[in-house]
Amino acid sequence: MDVGFIGLGNMGQAMVANLLAAGHKVRVWNRSPEPLKVLVEKGAQSVASPSEAFAGEAVVSMLGDDAALQAVILESGALEQAKPGLVHVNMATISVAFARVLAHAHRKYNVAYVAAPVLGRPDVAAAAKLNILAAGPADQIARVQPLFDAMGQKTWSFGDDASRANAVKLAVNFMLCVAVEATAEAAALVEAYGVAAPDLIQLITNSAFPGPVYSSYGKLIAEDRYEPALFKANLGLKDIKLALEAAAAVQTTLPIGNVVRDALLQSQAAGDGEKDMAVLGRLARQRAGRE
Amino acid sequence: MDVGFIGLGNMGQAMVANLLAAGHKVRVWNRSPEPLKVLVEKGAQSVASPSEAFAGEAVVSMLGDDAALQAVILESGALEQAKPGLVHVNMATISVAFARVLAHAHRKYNVAYVAAPVLGRPDVAAAAKLNILAAGPADQIARVQPLFDAMGQKTWSFGDDASRANAVKLAVNFMLCVAVEATAEAAALVEAYGVAAPDLIQLITNSAFPGPVYSSYGKLIAEDRYEPALFKANLGLKDIKLALEAAAAVQTTLPIGNVVRDALLQSQAAGDGEKDMAVLGRLARQRAGRE
Amino acid sequence: MDVGFIGLGNMGQAMVANLLAAGHKVRVWNRSPEPLKVLVEKGAQSVASPSEAFAGEAVVSMLGDDAALQAVILESGALEQAKPGLVHVNMATISVAFARVLAHAHRKYNVAYVAAPVLGRPDVAAAAKLNILAAGPADQIARVQPLFDAMGQKTWSFGDDASRANAVKLAVNFMLCVAVEATAEAAALVEAYGVAAPDLIQLITNSAFPGPVYSSYGKLIAEDRYEPALFKANLGLKDIKLALEAAAAVQTTLPIGNVVRDALLQSQAAGDGEKDMAVLGRLARQRAGRE
Amino acid sequence: MDVGFIGLGNMGQAMVANLLAAGHKVRVWNRSPEPLKVLVEKGAQSVASPSEAFAGEAVVSMLGDDAALQAVILESGALEQAKPGLVHVNMATISVAFARVLAHAHRKYNVAYVAAPVLGRPDVAAAAKLNILAAGPADQIARVQPLFDAMGQKTWSFGDDASRANAVKLAVNFMLCVAVEATAEAAALVEAYGVAAPDLIQLITNSAFPGPVYSSYGKLIAEDRYEPALFKANLGLKDIKLALEAAAAVQTTLPIGNVVRDALLQSQAAGDGEKDMAVLGRLARQRAGRE
Repeated sequence: MDVGFIGLGNMGQAMVANLLAAGHKVRVWNRSPEPLKVLVEKGAQSVASPSEAFAGEAVVSMLGDDAALQAVILESGALEQAKPGLVHVNMATISVAFARVLAHAHRKYNVAYVAAPVLGRPDVAAAAKLNILAAGPADQIARVQPLFDAMGQKTWSFGDDASRANAVKLAVNFMLCVAVEATAEAAALVEAYGVAAPDLIQLITNSAFPGPVYSSYGKLIAEDRYEPALFKANLGLKDIKLALEAAAAVQTTLPIGNVVRDALLQSQAAGDGEKDMAVLGRLARQRAGRE
Repeated sequence: MDVGFIGLGNMGQAMVANLLAAGHKVRVWNRSPEPLKVLVEKGAQSVASPSEAFAGEAVVSMLGDDAALQAVILESGALEQAKPGLVHVNMATISVAFARVLAHAHRKYNVAYVAAPVLGRPDVAAAAKLNILAAGPADQIARVQPLFDAMGQKTWSFGDDASRANAVKLAVNFMLCVAVEATAEAAALVEAYGVAAPDLIQLITNSAFPGPVYSSYGKLIAEDRYEPALFKANLGLKDIKLALEAAAAVQTTLPIGNVVRDALLQSQAAGDGEKDMAVLGRLARQRAGRE
Repeated sequence: MDVGFIGLGNMGQAMVANLLAAGHKVRVWNRSPEPLKVLVEKGAQSVASPSEAFAGEAVVSMLGDDAALQAVILESGALEQAKPGLVHVNMATISVAFARVLAHAHRKYNVAYVAAPVLGRPDVAAAAKLNILAAGPADQIARVQPLFDAMGQKTWSFGDDASRANAVKLAVNFMLCVAVEATAEAAALVEAYGVAAPDLIQLITNSAFPGPVYSSYGKLIAEDRYEPALFKANLGLKDIKLALEAAAAVQTTLPIGNVVRDALLQSQAAGDGEKDMAVLGRLARQRAGRE
Repeated sequence: MDVGFIGLGNMGQAMVANLLAAGHKVRVWNRSPEPLKVLVEKGAQSVASPSEAFAGEAVVSMLGDDAALQAVILESGALEQAKPGLVHVNMATISVAFARVLAHAHRKYNVAYVAAPVLGRPDVAAAAKLNILAAGPADQIARVQPLFDAMGQKTWSFGDDASRANAVKLAVNFMLCVAVEATAEAAALVEAYGVAAPDLIQLITNSAFPGPVYSSYGKLIAEDRYEPALFKANLGLKDIKLALEAAAAVQTTLPIGNVVRDALLQSQAAGDGEKDMAVLGRLARQRAGRE
């Protein structure tokens, strides 16, 4: 497939590599040129503008936030000049409000639009094991399924309304942040009774809470070590804010979300925003007068 | 081993059956006689008082709460009359405050004491797959290890201080309740965007949140069906209150615990206390103006 | 003084009447024409566009929210065409983020800008008893002091940076909403013990909590009567959201604010958004299984 | 009136002095003898046991907590030996659970019981300006009204059930703690925008929030000075815990109460428990990364 790819952060680089490995032709564009070289060596074609990335059958974007999409997709003129029949697959985590703005703009310029945020960190992306949460017209999702197959282990479809995929992504990241805060609070509790946090983590990950979330963040909390970051506190804060906004927009409350938002905000205020969000473990101990 | 067993609820009955199956001699006592018949048929010896249960090498108690232990163990005179050298293994979830009272009473009457609360519901107990959280003198834990082996899949040891096992148990149940509330909130969020809750549950249990907790409670939330109960809201409320008290006693906060406590209290006030604690899913929808 | 006035809701109408009564010449503009007639009868001059309101020495705006200001002040071209030397006094409660946007736009077009949100409901405005929270260049505040004197009982100055007045306004409205929620929770508590809510309100307003807030909202809660509204739940929700956003923007948490936000959101979801925000009293009783 | 008085802390000493000044005969008892001398000089009669204090027409107790009442009133034998016809007026803030225990014990020994917790700190007690919250049999309240008149400015009656007075007292102290936390959060917010906290306090206490609570605690927060304490954080924590327990016992939630409880718990963990509870202001600033 002739596909453009916009946004070459850690995630994007891994995803492009997998697209190339699967035999797709990939036109890459990025705001800063550093990531291009390696991908060009692997067979990607570097293009000079977002519009040129919109010149194939499909274009995938993996940008950091609403503002980046606003600038690169909406204000660049890329949509107006998109090749007729192209489908744009937006794989970033964005606000549901902006998801609707995007969907509207695509309808206006008659560009097909699929939202497809992913579950998985860069190592998962590199292994082509992402879970892909897709929403948009069924025929368009079918068209880009080969791309999803190259990048992920499974595609989950949530219907025609693109904003649904964003809502699901935010809900999952909300649950992720909650799991980290819950682990942090539980660790602070047992430590106050003289139990070593690693003993708690070992127990829960081998009983009620298997899986990568409790084990990976639990390890960081147990070791009270928050660098290098798997998932930065600032990014967790961004997502939990988006989840709370998405919820409030439909008169829905996320009471635990408030707690986690405040804890991450406090971590940010303490200068720990660039550390892993497991730094919530440090905060839980500080609240109890330790550290 | 010649062992007494006090407290024959659903958990206790299953545990006694496994002790008998492993060849132990079990003296059973219960406040109400109904559960005795079946166990006697399986080979248990029914005794007339708690004190007679304290006449072997060990006695296991699996009572419902602090008050039951106060009545049956402390006020019955059982400790005073316990056979010298006997070890009492308390497997119930109790408050850490009462755990200390119990430990003190055992020291006074020179009866060995091991706290060994368990992770697992009655079906897990029946399958002898409990996770047993033990704390107490290492030699005493070693003595009763054959009993633990008959009832559980693994014993986790947390050191000499019996209250530690209770703290760990409360921490795990706290995390359990949090996981249910988080799932409830996430389901309410995605539903407001038109996503069916079962689709969310299927996604998370096959990606970030594998394991029995999210799948079993998630299923109840997804189906909006809360009977029969796996774990009653009232029992969840009891445990989360114990966790908050245990935390406050050591100047530790559980901010998410407050949210869950209030939600369970509200479910109780709404008359849903005997339903499964997944009824938090109903409450989350009600907060959003649905149901 | 030759002054324009934009935004003739309940507050604006009362304020214009006081400006007229004090002898000022007032050019009035409003999106819908209904409120104009009465004011013209009192001596106001109706103008055809926001720009014409910007043709005197000063212009006061009292619009409902950020979006209204965006449309009427920024997108109308009023600032570009403003009479040189004019000062714009914005008396609405707006977000601190938009306050900075406004300040920037005024600097660009060289129009003096004073933020002057007020404390007081329409009856207080009618009595010219508003408390005016002003921030902006000291000389500009001094210029419009005669206007403030005609509309309020006192002007409080918070320095040069206009966003400060907005922050203070949001902080006070946050405290207002908290006081209502606290009264609601306290009433629900004592009622559960058989004490009539009016007895509590009478006690507190005659002891620890004198003043208009606890007595007026307390009365509505005590009587469980939420119409007509003194301050609508939807407006309280808007302000508490603004306060939380303003706080988050500077890494500051308002933990109680989260609770109140969620309660108001829930009232909105229940269809009570247009009732008085004292409807938090109804919600507190519902949480306890009553009503 | 011939009245016993048990519990001579700062409050009790001031109250006895006022009873003496009003011409009552007062038998005083205290666990430690230090406070007795001054009161004896003023005309009080020092007695050797709680029972002797229960030998007149009435006895007032002003003890610190449930445990003190348990020891001094219930376990001392004072009730059994109380003079027939005597009425016991308990003016301490106690749990509603223990209030029922006390009421029951009094019925058992046929001693009349009135609960009469007070609003006001020691300086208010010294000025005989307490607000007295009374509940119990109307005729008994009438009998001791002369004592109340000597100690307070007003008696508020809440009916026959003594636990009601305790519920009201806890509700008011809950509101007090909330007001302090709200002020702390508001101050942290405006400070982050460059507004000095004293300017906020001056504004609110001269507009929406007059009265002693906001001005006295607001002053401490504004000055970031928490000693000497008007109301210790540890005592605020005690009362907010009692309020939450009283609420939970009747399936009622106090969502803001949780926030305040945790903040006070955190202040305690930080070693600030003996400082004024306005130290919540320090905590709010710390959360925002300041101090």
